[in-house]
Amino acid sequence: MSEPPCLLCRIAAGELEARKFVETERVVGLMNDAEPLARGHAVFFPKRHAERLEQIDDGDLAELMRLLAASARALALPQFNVLQNNGALAGQTVFHAHFHLIPKWSAADGLRYERPARGSLDHGAAFEQLRAAFAR
Amino acid sequence: MSEPPCLLCRIAAGELEARKFVETERVVGLMNDAEPLARGHAVFFPKRHAERLEQIDDGDLAELMRLLAASARALALPQFNVLQNNGALAGQTVFHAHFHLIPKWSAADGLRYERPARGSLDHGAAFEQLRAAFAR
Repeated sequence: MSEPPCLLCRIAAGELEARKFVETERVVGLMNDAEPLARGHAVFFPKRHAERLEQIDDGDLAELMRLLAASARALALPQFNVLQNNGALAGQTVFHAHFHLIPKWSAADGLRYERPARGSLDHGAAFEQLRAAFAR
Repeated sequence: MSEPPCLLCRIAAGELEARKFVETERVVGLMNDAEPLARGHAVFFPKRHAERLEQIDDGDLAELMRLLAASARALALPQFNVLQNNGALAGQTVFHAHFHLIPKWSAADGLRYERPARGSLDHGAAFEQLRAAFAR
């Protein structure tokens, strides 16, 4: 059996309509018409299929971020968030890695997230893992 | 009068203590001990001061994302979010641009954000602005 077709791969291939505003050899940027959080909510993804951030090619990722930052400049957004979700529990709904550029026009729209006062958390294990990874 | 010293510039310069796990010529990665949303919540920022995403040097941004993705791989996170805030209304509290890597260990911790069913929004103006910017 073949894999079910990936939505963003199909958009990258031009098989599905989408409001693309930029397309390079590596990256597509389009308006989020599916689940927008604000006017101007845009999405950027690598053409080469990668399910999650960890699998995106470094060159694709560099270009994607360059285009995302250029888009924020082009829109002259006073306030905005960049969000990228990995895994269903983290809110990923399309399993081809993508970044959201979400304008924040008012407190009521855009990305609304909780900022609980959690105090200190035990970062010990993560810190040691990361230190070891980069010490290699 | 001189500018008030920037917190992340001081950390980059080694003037303030922080749990750095990676440091290159361009970028620092450290544990978020100030306002953590989850165990292992890490923050990445360019050493060169930039208040917001739009001002980060492209090379600094590429390296930052490369290190962030490498950190997610090193931690083998099953689920996580990447968040970057620009402007106070968007949740920016430290005005030296930085990216959050936030593990999502359970529905209850990590980044919790609203996903309202907003239906369609008028992306027309933003779409035209972005198309024009990239058509140049």
